[in-house]
Amino acid sequence: MKKTEIAKLGEFGLIDHLTGDIRLTQPSSLKGVGDDAAVLNYNGKHTLVTTDLLLEGIHFDLVYAPLKHLGYKAAVINFSDIYAMNGTPQQITVSLGISKRFSVEDLEEFYSGLKLACEIYGVDIVGGDTTSSLTGFTISITCIGSAEEDKIVYRNGAKDTDLLYVSGDLGASYMGLQLLEREKVVFDGSDEVQPDFSGKEYLLERQLKPEARKDIVALLAEHGIVPTAMIDLSDGLSSDLLHICKQSNVGCRLFEERIPIDYQTAMMAETFNMNVTTVALNGGEDYELLFTVPLTLHEKMSAVPGVHLIGHITESGQGCYLVTRDGQEMQLRAQGWNHLAEE
Amino acid sequence: MKKTEIAKLGEFGLIDHLTGDIRLTQPSSLKGVGDDAAVLNYNGKHTLVTTDLLLEGIHFDLVYAPLKHLGYKAAVINFSDIYAMNGTPQQITVSLGISKRFSVEDLEEFYSGLKLACEIYGVDIVGGDTTSSLTGFTISITCIGSAEEDKIVYRNGAKDTDLLYVSGDLGASYMGLQLLEREKVVFDGSDEVQPDFSGKEYLLERQLKPEARKDIVALLAEHGIVPTAMIDLSDGLSSDLLHICKQSNVGCRLFEERIPIDYQTAMMAETFNMNVTTVALNGGEDYELLFTVPLTLHEKMSAVPGVHLIGHITESGQGCYLVTRDGQEMQLRAQGWNHLAEE
Repeated sequence: MKKTEIAKLGEFGLIDHLTGDIRLTQPSSLKGVGDDAAVLNYNGKHTLVTTDLLLEGIHFDLVYAPLKHLGYKAAVINFSDIYAMNGTPQQITVSLGISKRFSVEDLEEFYSGLKLACEIYGVDIVGGDTTSSLTGFTISITCIGSAEEDKIVYRNGAKDTDLLYVSGDLGASYMGLQLLEREKVVFDGSDEVQPDFSGKEYLLERQLKPEARKDIVALLAEHGIVPTAMIDLSDGLSSDLLHICKQSNVGCRLFEERIPIDYQTAMMAETFNMNVTTVALNGGEDYELLFTVPLTLHEKMSAVPGVHLIGHITESGQGCYLVTRDGQEMQLRAQGWNHLAEE
Repeated sequence: MKKTEIAKLGEFGLIDHLTGDIRLTQPSSLKGVGDDAAVLNYNGKHTLVTTDLLLEGIHFDLVYAPLKHLGYKAAVINFSDIYAMNGTPQQITVSLGISKRFSVEDLEEFYSGLKLACEIYGVDIVGGDTTSSLTGFTISITCIGSAEEDKIVYRNGAKDTDLLYVSGDLGASYMGLQLLEREKVVFDGSDEVQPDFSGKEYLLERQLKPEARKDIVALLAEHGIVPTAMIDLSDGLSSDLLHICKQSNVGCRLFEERIPIDYQTAMMAETFNMNVTTVALNGGEDYELLFTVPLTLHEKMSAVPGVHLIGHITESGQGCYLVTRDGQEMQLRAQGWNHLAEE
């Protein structure tokens, strides 16, 4: 039998390959595979569903990720997918594969983070499955949310001349991860020698305990703005912007000088001798919202705090390019964390 | 820090411990942790959500579980949870952790089973997450279903004098597993020596490619019967019946001579020198429906094919007992597959 290596297709290629022929047959299935969340119609009200699988050694390292933070993050990254559809997360189910070395107290820690996130974001834990794992800790969370039909924002609605916005700042989570990896040796060793993270708290928090941009969704609603397309930044600005462009069948121009980067991120990139723009483009795990709005809403948008105009949408034929500080155009590539291609 | 071993609590004790203090806060959350599925209310229509996590080495062995069958089974056991609420499964999300040794063709096989199950049961695949796994194959499926409010059947509605029914026959899946484990040596070895499974196909099918009892749910509806309590048999008759009794705060009498057992199951139990009643009580993975109906519906129930009257519900004070063929009463114990306690 022919054996094709998965790395040949990459994560997104693999998903396309396996799910490309799936047809929706139920009247209640409005939107299936291919956006931040699925959209279902139960009796006229729209229901959103999203799911994330986190595996030890791939998505987190228990050497430096405290279990409480991990529980918080596992919940929040699912909420983020629902917000990226302009919806409201309402319930989660939590399935855990528990490794032998875990104690009840370890799981209490994990659940305390999970519960804290649910409390802050107003979400209920309604079910799950718990089993033992022969290997690492496995976390699978599914989030269900609600949305008004005419307010749901897909990835495929961006139009030529739309403006491109992003919330917050980018690259901090990735630099936090680099910092943690560097200090891992210290964690592994003696209890007495503790790594010094002073002045770098922001980077660590962005990596270990990110927030979902519920506030941005609320602000946009307050200002009466419904984006034409939206996605949350999990794989990296470059990769996620290309998702919007591909699914909307448009091109884009992204301006390097406009990409929002925090001071700590820039400092740390310099320490690691990394190009900070590359970090912001490809780092991933920012959980900021990337969205497009019609040019006519430019004035209205300027009254919304916490978001940055970073570029605009073009016709499909014009391609997807980063405009550098010196005015050169470089083609955008999806170099985000492609776990499957990395191997 | 105090460390409590998880085995001390067991799977259900652990879930109770971690989720016991969870309060539902959203108006759309009607029923959370503790039944076959959660019940949500989106605009008056009831939505059911259930999830299952399957891990290689714990729930399946790729040495003898064909990937197509595994895909089929992974979907069907989720549908079964929705039917156990008297609902209709409508959508699933599929998250996979893919081990390095998998090829694209392996995943095509898995998906072909998944798609076949969805086609047969009328369910759409609407989303998921795909990542690499450093260790084994990981499958997390969440199923969303619909139900009419007044037709949903919980585990907690059984009343004194209710009759206890089960569909199909029990223990076959467990004997199929025993058979596969015994022949595993042959699988592992040369391609030329194949194990002889003739005459045992039913046991293998029950283990490798089970069905959910959509037909029983339809038959009950046709006859105008709404059970007072229902559960699907995944952990074993004994364990699952105790769930109904505990949550309904009732006792029960289960009659050994009435437990439906297939001829092949009985034969195989004899070959393995196992007590076939023990196999039927504790084997698990039957995916049959266990339910209670009021005594007054006895006549109506006798017109429903494929179900067996196996006992009745008593007051709580009378305990939960198996009445053996020789008239003795033995207390029922949950000895189902308790993966967490087993370790």
